[in-house]
Amino acid sequence: MNLKGLRVSGRRLQSALEEMARIGATAGGGVQRLALADEDKKARDLFVDWLQALKLEIAVDEMGNIFGTRPGAQKALPPVMSGSHIDSQPRGGRFDGILGVMGTLEVLRTLEENNISTARPIAIVAWTSEEGCRFTPAMLGSGVWTGALDRDWVYNRTDLSGRRFEDELIRIGYKGTAPCKKKPVHCYYEYHIEQGPVLEREAKTIGVPRGITGLHWYDIYLEGEANQAGPTPMAGRRDALVTAAEMILKVNELPQRMGGKLVATVGEIQNYPNSRNIIPAKVHFTVDIRSWDDQHAIKAWDLLRNDFEDIAASRGCPINIEETWRVAHAPFDEKRVQLITDCVASLGYSYLPMVSGAGHDASYMSRVCPTAMIFVPSIGGRSHVEVENTRMEDCAAGANVLLHAIVRSANEI
Amino acid sequence: MNLKGLRVSGRRLQSALEEMARIGATAGGGVQRLALADEDKKARDLFVDWLQALKLEIAVDEMGNIFGTRPGAQKALPPVMSGSHIDSQPRGGRFDGILGVMGTLEVLRTLEENNISTARPIAIVAWTSEEGCRFTPAMLGSGVWTGALDRDWVYNRTDLSGRRFEDELIRIGYKGTAPCKKKPVHCYYEYHIEQGPVLEREAKTIGVPRGITGLHWYDIYLEGEANQAGPTPMAGRRDALVTAAEMILKVNELPQRMGGKLVATVGEIQNYPNSRNIIPAKVHFTVDIRSWDDQHAIKAWDLLRNDFEDIAASRGCPINIEETWRVAHAPFDEKRVQLITDCVASLGYSYLPMVSGAGHDASYMSRVCPTAMIFVPSIGGRSHVEVENTRMEDCAAGANVLLHAIVRSANEI
Repeated sequence: MNLKGLRVSGRRLQSALEEMARIGATAGGGVQRLALADEDKKARDLFVDWLQALKLEIAVDEMGNIFGTRPGAQKALPPVMSGSHIDSQPRGGRFDGILGVMGTLEVLRTLEENNISTARPIAIVAWTSEEGCRFTPAMLGSGVWTGALDRDWVYNRTDLSGRRFEDELIRIGYKGTAPCKKKPVHCYYEYHIEQGPVLEREAKTIGVPRGITGLHWYDIYLEGEANQAGPTPMAGRRDALVTAAEMILKVNELPQRMGGKLVATVGEIQNYPNSRNIIPAKVHFTVDIRSWDDQHAIKAWDLLRNDFEDIAASRGCPINIEETWRVAHAPFDEKRVQLITDCVASLGYSYLPMVSGAGHDASYMSRVCPTAMIFVPSIGGRSHVEVENTRMEDCAAGANVLLHAIVRSANEI
Repeated sequence: MNLKGLRVSGRRLQSALEEMARIGATAGGGVQRLALADEDKKARDLFVDWLQALKLEIAVDEMGNIFGTRPGAQKALPPVMSGSHIDSQPRGGRFDGILGVMGTLEVLRTLEENNISTARPIAIVAWTSEEGCRFTPAMLGSGVWTGALDRDWVYNRTDLSGRRFEDELIRIGYKGTAPCKKKPVHCYYEYHIEQGPVLEREAKTIGVPRGITGLHWYDIYLEGEANQAGPTPMAGRRDALVTAAEMILKVNELPQRMGGKLVATVGEIQNYPNSRNIIPAKVHFTVDIRSWDDQHAIKAWDLLRNDFEDIAASRGCPINIEETWRVAHAPFDEKRVQLITDCVASLGYSYLPMVSGAGHDASYMSRVCPTAMIFVPSIGGRSHVEVENTRMEDCAAGANVLLHAIVRSANEI
């Protein structure tokens, strides 16, 4: 077998993506497979069926992470691992996460079909609860596996309706028996859509990120005073929503004020009592700051925090700030990034060295083993929405890069 | 009987208020009796029991408005009408609306107890769905009765969970058979808490409003573009929440910009998809503008509307504006306002001529008959909240003013 000429089946990959997209399909053409919901269970069941058909050695750990291992000629060597996640955003897209899982599956199918064996085992993985929208924070399965998060702390996380993570894991039948604990891994690859507009804008097929930006999440709580909107004079009002509005503009201005090199977003807001003729008494909103430069992001936050405190004081609305989550930027392994770049070049695709603005399970994995990622373009840069889309030829191109990266790495001894 | 020395029983009024406050009582010491909910039905049932005990002639009309009429010596003469509403805000207070109904009931109980008859009939009324928080707009019962709103249009209004007004009215057993149509009324009085801080600040017991400010409600819809917060550069974002934030500050600055004489509030906001790592794609928020001077309010809105359109354009978020509701300022009948003032003076209470910033059923009633209102102080100016409170001696004082105003008016022939 000429390994150089080896290619995945773009058609088979497409069909796997389409079959997955029917599980939790939304009217708007996207999918909704929230972590540990019924649709997540259905997609997991289908995935496990497919792993069984490939005769992989299947293990589900106590966090519900699913592993399928294809033995290598030298069984004792740590495996090459590749995968992503199955869960989606509410009314999310058909590519985020699942492309990396189906891409790896397609790699394994291609190897099987061509009777190609490798020196090292190859492990495909589907990490539990990556999105962080039903249960916060994000990347729970890989977080516990790599030792960054505590299993029992995650078990006790609840969704908005108060359901516990562990109870939901048991309910869908995916609380496995294998300990959720890192094992030696030769290297980890994660294939994903870009989720931004840069590759499309630059007309490149493959993105090769050198790492993931740092991620800083904050929760802001403001306390105002509810009163009837009509008879309450403007002077003396303590309006929590007006106070929040001034802060939201500050968040939006932050990147420019810091000379770029970061993005800052308020994605979520709750207002109480949220009645049109009552002055808002309480507001909660979130702040998301991302930068490759961790110190730059912290400096930005310090500025913002000062602004918030000044605004809260001047508008008479006491503020409570929670520093919810902070993940340092995750530089990938230079040799693995180079290997990806070499594979892209030998396959003849155009590519762009870049940075990932989105968090991925690869962020935690990069702490425990050499890690790299492969990106393909998101049409219009759209992601986390139902119209999220990637051209099928790009999906196949990314899978070919993954195929060659995996085979090369699995033959390193 | 010396009419001049006649007084209500403050203790009996207090006990009626307390019994009503148990229906829909909240943990925070307020009440929640949303229009046409089960608690509204329970309170109506109790109210009707009390009307029956007074042997009043009871009528429920097809909008669920409840009338109880005490005959006058001259039955053919149009009645003096007095009342308010039973429904409350979500987690609202124990006085808003119900004080006017219980105050009028106490007046009738006092007349009965003292065997006082009047030339004209006296009608007590509880109007349906005044608050406008479950079914919008506000003041639906009095709106239809006075001919300002169309009955079938109101029947088809739905709450947030899609329940129709008429279906809910039937469900609680208060779709009556009497036509909801105005009849001749000699004059209408409405006794209410101030819902603002002015009487307390000025240390006055009674407020005598010369009318109700105009009320202008708008609904703003913004369209942004949802994208993953991390990989989407700041440049080129179309963030609906940032756009809304800039507009909310403009609303808050509007009164000062217009040289006062109006209040402006954003009480309600919805953000979609409302996920912390997704750029907001859609925002809806409300604007509430109130002024005694209708033209001044419209001038202010014109300014604001221009600002909104400029902001929407510069931030790339298309805007859709609905002019939801506009009620002109409602000046009360000068003679009736004078009569209230005379009663206050003869009872020896301190008082303040003022304007009502809140809408009331009296607003619609003032279009069809001579109307006036009586206010008592709200502690701390707080209203539409669970801690809404008014001192019991003030409640009794207001009821005494109402008693004398009703008796004097009902003897005008």
